[in-house]
Amino acid sequence: MRAPESEHPRIVELLARLRAARPRVHCITNSVAQAFTANVLLALGAVPSMTLSGEEIGPFVASADALLVNLGTLDAERRAAVATAVQVANAQDRPWVLDPVFVDRSPPRAEHARALIAFAPRAIRLNAPELAALAATGDAGDLARTARTTIGLTGARDVVTDGVRAASVANGHPLMARVTAMGCAASAVTAAFLSVERDAYAATLAALTVFGVAGEVAGGRAAGPGSFASEMLDVLYGLDAGMLRHARIT
Amino acid sequence: MRAPESEHPRIVELLARLRAARPRVHCITNSVAQAFTANVLLALGAVPSMTLSGEEIGPFVASADALLVNLGTLDAERRAAVATAVQVANAQDRPWVLDPVFVDRSPPRAEHARALIAFAPRAIRLNAPELAALAATGDAGDLARTARTTIGLTGARDVVTDGVRAASVANGHPLMARVTAMGCAASAVTAAFLSVERDAYAATLAALTVFGVAGEVAGGRAAGPGSFASEMLDVLYGLDAGMLRHARIT
Amino acid sequence: MRAPESEHPRIVELLARLRAARPRVHCITNSVAQAFTANVLLALGAVPSMTLSGEEIGPFVASADALLVNLGTLDAERRAAVATAVQVANAQDRPWVLDPVFVDRSPPRAEHARALIAFAPRAIRLNAPELAALAATGDAGDLARTARTTIGLTGARDVVTDGVRAASVANGHPLMARVTAMGCAASAVTAAFLSVERDAYAATLAALTVFGVAGEVAGGRAAGPGSFASEMLDVLYGLDAGMLRHARIT
Repeated sequence: MRAPESEHPRIVELLARLRAARPRVHCITNSVAQAFTANVLLALGAVPSMTLSGEEIGPFVASADALLVNLGTLDAERRAAVATAVQVANAQDRPWVLDPVFVDRSPPRAEHARALIAFAPRAIRLNAPELAALAATGDAGDLARTARTTIGLTGARDVVTDGVRAASVANGHPLMARVTAMGCAASAVTAAFLSVERDAYAATLAALTVFGVAGEVAGGRAAGPGSFASEMLDVLYGLDAGMLRHARIT
Repeated sequence: MRAPESEHPRIVELLARLRAARPRVHCITNSVAQAFTANVLLALGAVPSMTLSGEEIGPFVASADALLVNLGTLDAERRAAVATAVQVANAQDRPWVLDPVFVDRSPPRAEHARALIAFAPRAIRLNAPELAALAATGDAGDLARTARTTIGLTGARDVVTDGVRAASVANGHPLMARVTAMGCAASAVTAAFLSVERDAYAATLAALTVFGVAGEVAGGRAAGPGSFASEMLDVLYGLDAGMLRHARIT
Repeated sequence: MRAPESEHPRIVELLARLRAARPRVHCITNSVAQAFTANVLLALGAVPSMTLSGEEIGPFVASADALLVNLGTLDAERRAAVATAVQVANAQDRPWVLDPVFVDRSPPRAEHARALIAFAPRAIRLNAPELAALAATGDAGDLARTARTTIGLTGARDVVTDGVRAASVANGHPLMARVTAMGCAASAVTAAFLSVERDAYAATLAALTVFGVAGEVAGGRAAGPGSFASEMLDVLYGLDAGMLRHARIT
C-alpha cells in the first residue's frame, strides 16, 4: 500500500467545506446514541435528523446529504427503516455509512450487516472485534477490497483504508472508551464528511482525524468522562487548523 | 394588535407559581429529545413523565397537569399514543402543547399535525419553516386565529401571539441552535407554564421568555455547545427576577 | 434486625473487584434513561449493552454478567424482551435487578412488576411510593421477606435490607432529584455490583453507598443540575477509598 502524503491541508479544507455546506445527515442509530450523535453533528456544523418511521424515512433520506446506518438496538422497525433508507440513498446517489455495532455479539446482526454490505456503503466504521466478525482474516484491507468500500477501523490507533491506500491515525484519548456512543458519533461524522468529499478514503481519513484530535484535546482538559463529553462538543465546535496540527497520521 | 405592557412582574410570578406547584408534565416526544427535555423540566421545577405505551398513556396523562405532543421520530406507537393522550387531556381539561417538528420535511407529518390542530392544543410551538408548512400565509397571527390557539414561534427573535395580542422576545443565543432538542424543550416548558396559568398567551410568553433569557445567560458563560447545554440547566435551576430583567419583550 | 458492622473495607474491595472485572451489564431500560445509565456504568468501569430486539436479547443476556430490568416507558417490545431476558438470566444463573419505575402511577405496570417478582430478582431498587404500590405494609423488610430478595429503597436516606439484615445510607444530594434517570442508574450500578458479589445484601449496600457518596461529592462541586450530572460521572470515575470514608451507613 502507498504511504499517505501530508494530509493536514486537505483535512483543514474538508472541515471548512463541511462547515460551509451545513450538510443534513440522516441517522438511523440506536436510541442510546441518538442525542450525543445529534449533538456531535451540530457541534461540527452539520444538521441531524433521526426519524425511523416507515412512512417518513424515504422523504427524510431523499432530502438529506448523507445517511448513517447504525445497527445498535436493532429492532423490527429499525430494520425496515434501514432497507428503505439504503434503497433511497443509492437511488439518489447519497453516500451512506454502515456502523455494524456489536456484530461480534449477535449472529443475526452479523448476518444483517453482511446483507447490507452488498448494498455498497461508501464507508464502514467499526472496531476490531466487529471487523473480525465480518472479515475472516480480520484484516481491514481485505474487507475494503471484497466489499469495494472504505474501512474506518477505530481503536487505540485508527486505520483507514480503501484496500489500495492506507493510513493510521494515532490520536484519541482513553476517556473516549468511557463515554457511550463515541464510535457511533464517529460514524455520523464520517457520513458528514462523505457528503462534501467524493473520495471516500479522503473523507473517512478526515473524519477520523478530526474526531481523534478533538478527543485528544478534550481529554487533556477533562477531569473524567462527564466533563470529557462536554469538552468534546466544545472542541469540535471550535476545532481549527492549529489544533489539527496535533494530527499524527502515518 | 395591542402592544404588550411590561410583562416582567407577571413572568417572575408565573415562574414562582410553577416552582411551587411542581407540575407533572407528560411528554410524548421523540427519543432524541427525551433526556434533555426531562432534565430541562426538572431543572425548572416540574416533574416529567414520558411513557408511550397504549395501555399506560391514559392514566399517565390523566394524572399529569399538562401534556406535550411532539411529532419528532413519529412512529405507529407514538401516533396511537398521541390520539389517546389528546383525548384524555381534553376530557380532563388539561392544557396540551403541539410541537410539529419538521412538518416542513414530511408531508404525512404535516397532515397529521393539521388533524391534531382540530383537537384544540392550548398552544403550538414551532419555527418559521414549520409555520410555513401549516399556514398558507406563513403568518403566526393567521394560524392563531384559524386554529383558535396561541402560537409560540421561535427563532432569532421569538413571537408569541393569540391572534389578538402579540409580543416578540429578543433573547436567546446562537448556541441554542447547536444543541439538539432545544426547541422540543421550549415546548415542554410551555406546557409546564400552561399548567399554572389559564391565559395561554401569558403562559407561552412567560415560557419563551424564561427559556430565552436562560439561553442568553448560559451562552454568555459557555465555551461551546457542550458546556452550553450544561449551563442551560444550571441557569434554569437558578433563574431569578434579576436575571429575568434581561428580558427584551416588545 | 442486626445492626451493620463497619462496611467501609468491604465496599472499597467490591468497587476494586468491579473495576477489575469490567462486568457486562445488559440493561432493559426506558429510552429516557439509556444514555445516562450507559455513561454511569462506563464511568464506574462496567460495560453496558441495551438492545431490546426479540431476536437478539437472548444472546446479549447470555453473554452479560448481570441484567437490569427497568419498567419505565414499558411498551409491547420491552415487555416481550423482559420475559426472554429474565428466563435466560435465571437459566444461566446471572443476577438481575428489578426497577419498578412509576408502578404507583400505572396499575398495569404494578401488576407486571408483581408477576416479575415471582421470577426472583436478586434485588429490587425502588422509591417509597413504588414500594407502597408493591407492599401492602409499605415496609421494605416485608417485601424482602415475601419476595425473598434484597430491597434497595432510595430516598433522602437509602435503606438496604434482605429482611434479616438492614442498613441505612445517609449520603446523596438534593440535586440527584433534579436529573432524570438517577434512580435508573442506581439500579444499573446495583446490577453491576451483584455480578461481582454473590451476597445480594452486601452488593446492594455497596452499590447504593458508592452512588450516594458520588452524588454527595458531585453535589458539593456543582452549580446546578447540568454541572451536577457531569460531575457525577467524573466522581464515579475517580471514586476512591478516601471519598468512600464519607459513607454514613448505620
